[in-house]
Amino acid sequence: MKFIDGGVCAALGFTAAGLHVGVKTKNPNKKDLALIVADDVCNAAAVYTKNVVKAAPLHVTRAHLADGKARAIIANSGNANACAPLGEENAELTCRAVAEKLGIAEGEIVVASTGVIGQTLPVGVITDGVPTLAGLLSRDGSDDAAAAIMTTDTVKKEAAVEFAVGGGTARIGGIAKGSGMIHPNMGTMLCFITTDCAISVEMLNAALKSATRESFNRISVDGDTSTNDMCVVLASGKAGNAEITDIGEDYAAFDGALRGLCVKLATEMASDGEGAKHLITCTVSNAETVDKAETIAKSVISSTLFKAAVFGADANWGRVLCAMGYSGEEFAPDAVDVAFKSGAGTIEVCESGRGLPFDEDLAKQILTEHDIEVLIDLHEQPLDSGACTCWGCDITYDYIKINGDYRT
Amino acid sequence: MKFIDGGVCAALGFTAAGLHVGVKTKNPNKKDLALIVADDVCNAAAVYTKNVVKAAPLHVTRAHLADGKARAIIANSGNANACAPLGEENAELTCRAVAEKLGIAEGEIVVASTGVIGQTLPVGVITDGVPTLAGLLSRDGSDDAAAAIMTTDTVKKEAAVEFAVGGGTARIGGIAKGSGMIHPNMGTMLCFITTDCAISVEMLNAALKSATRESFNRISVDGDTSTNDMCVVLASGKAGNAEITDIGEDYAAFDGALRGLCVKLATEMASDGEGAKHLITCTVSNAETVDKAETIAKSVISSTLFKAAVFGADANWGRVLCAMGYSGEEFAPDAVDVAFKSGAGTIEVCESGRGLPFDEDLAKQILTEHDIEVLIDLHEQPLDSGACTCWGCDITYDYIKINGDYRT
Repeated sequence: MKFIDGGVCAALGFTAAGLHVGVKTKNPNKKDLALIVADDVCNAAAVYTKNVVKAAPLHVTRAHLADGKARAIIANSGNANACAPLGEENAELTCRAVAEKLGIAEGEIVVASTGVIGQTLPVGVITDGVPTLAGLLSRDGSDDAAAAIMTTDTVKKEAAVEFAVGGGTARIGGIAKGSGMIHPNMGTMLCFITTDCAISVEMLNAALKSATRESFNRISVDGDTSTNDMCVVLASGKAGNAEITDIGEDYAAFDGALRGLCVKLATEMASDGEGAKHLITCTVSNAETVDKAETIAKSVISSTLFKAAVFGADANWGRVLCAMGYSGEEFAPDAVDVAFKSGAGTIEVCESGRGLPFDEDLAKQILTEHDIEVLIDLHEQPLDSGACTCWGCDITYDYIKINGDYRT
Repeated sequence: MKFIDGGVCAALGFTAAGLHVGVKTKNPNKKDLALIVADDVCNAAAVYTKNVVKAAPLHVTRAHLADGKARAIIANSGNANACAPLGEENAELTCRAVAEKLGIAEGEIVVASTGVIGQTLPVGVITDGVPTLAGLLSRDGSDDAAAAIMTTDTVKKEAAVEFAVGGGTARIGGIAKGSGMIHPNMGTMLCFITTDCAISVEMLNAALKSATRESFNRISVDGDTSTNDMCVVLASGKAGNAEITDIGEDYAAFDGALRGLCVKLATEMASDGEGAKHLITCTVSNAETVDKAETIAKSVISSTLFKAAVFGADANWGRVLCAMGYSGEEFAPDAVDVAFKSGAGTIEVCESGRGLPFDEDLAKQILTEHDIEVLIDLHEQPLDSGACTCWGCDITYDYIKINGDYRT
């Protein structure tokens, strides 16, 4: 597997476009409507937020994907179409405009929204904009589509990989957006993925569930699980491989490539968390089970106090132990080792649950780097049975600024 | 029940004192050692943090309270004595110094610490300070003791009530401290309570568990549950009432008064959350059960995004619905009403799960007040069966500032 350019257009059989149509009223330079279209009908799979309050587009998309088939994805930013009047009606009107322009069925369309909750979707500017947007569809359009789904994101999230499968080569590409309301609990963001690998709906679903569990479900920005999270994958089958229909070597190749792509997009999302200055990577090793390691690692990257310490480049490892302790998992505090690591070096701060004397200047240097690692060893038996990595970010003045007055 | 002055010395049979002995090295004006002493041995009860990582003093105190008896409380601020070398030894040395000076048994002493995790307790300055501190014990000492347990608290938390019981009058008083690492999960802070009501150890335990569940366990500052949380109550029995030994009218009077005291201290703690500018009171009503109402209310007051919106006086009720939705409870989003209320008025923002048009200027005025109420109606049947109130605070630039470099 290697990373390549092209985003959602890297795979054969897809075009994309992005445009400002007026959902974002404040800045006409900010794109707010994205379209991804497959040349032919694709196998499709999706995962959705576990939030009980689900945005209207999720209900519409779920119904459209009931047959495992889709051909286009339409997504707006600037308005979440959640808890808003006429939610499903407006999501359906959006699909209808796309269907009419492209000459495809409404049921082949995935619809998604992201932005402010509770305000009526300005569906008119969207349906009016669809024809122009469709006219812009191209094999170079992934960048624009990635830009058009951004809200408070500061950088576009776009990636693609190619990998060997069935004696040939296939590609998977994706675009994604954060960057607030991000917390491990399925999807936790918008992510649209395309692939030209031929794969059955059943295997596509299995691979997507597995990949999101080990990528997007292992990041946290602020502990808030959004109403709009959705991760969708369309498979065009144009790579020419024999369709993957069961577990085997080909499935393993696809599964590994999809996971690699999702981890890349997930870490970009954590790194670009609202206001974030640091990407925090926490690895818990030598736990009895992977689940235990995951729960503890998530608790650490979700701790507001530890996130504030990282912002201050303060090696306050006590907050790491504290967050481990309230994770809900049982472990022996007296066995725990903790170290901080970055490009500037590694420093052991806690051994067997007790503080070690350490060089505060070196610790400061290590924590001043953008990418920080927290390494936790539980020393449970059997060794090496459970390890897990989760990703988060620090909490900063800018997070407060961004979210203190986001709506108006 | 009415509120009176005197804090932990309001009840008959108690003296208290507070002093700077040098645990807080930076500022000699900040008291860092508190002592509360009963004239005679008291019935005692305690609740502790549920964090798996427990500070050394908790283990020592738990052992000392195994017999349900205690006579003194010694507590330092500036160092948590958690995950630190010689933790239990130093907690025991602290008890020994108090025992020797007061001529009582070590097993009659409650010991507590709060402050930085992972650094060795400077036990020498504590044991050296105990004789001076003991010399300052007085019926007017509650204020000084309250000051001596403060860390990042900006105001002292101290309250007392008197209430009718068994044909006479009894008193309950307490001091408490926050103000970071505060999250609903037992204790969640230090709180020392005294009463002159005569009550058995069993009934005292029952009342304390019930009162903390409905007060301290319903507040959140930052979602972090500390390693050091402890709430202790000592009962001197000097009010002269017949000892309360079972459920009945007298127990109800004590239970109500204790709950009233704890709610007062808990709301003060939430209001003085690190960096907080607002006290947020969230009430969920018409839920199927009180537990469901509590879970949903806690989720709302714990939402970082909603806390940031309150800081910005932004009526972003979508974040309220979002936080309700990921609480883990099932409910019908389409039935939910939400209103914001304060001294400046009340404004309905969401009805039956959909946004209402509202006056943005009035909403701003309402949310600019210090005390903000969020009123949520689930409209579940049977009506009035479940309601619960929880308390939190906003998240501000100062929270980040305070916690970005707390340790050094």
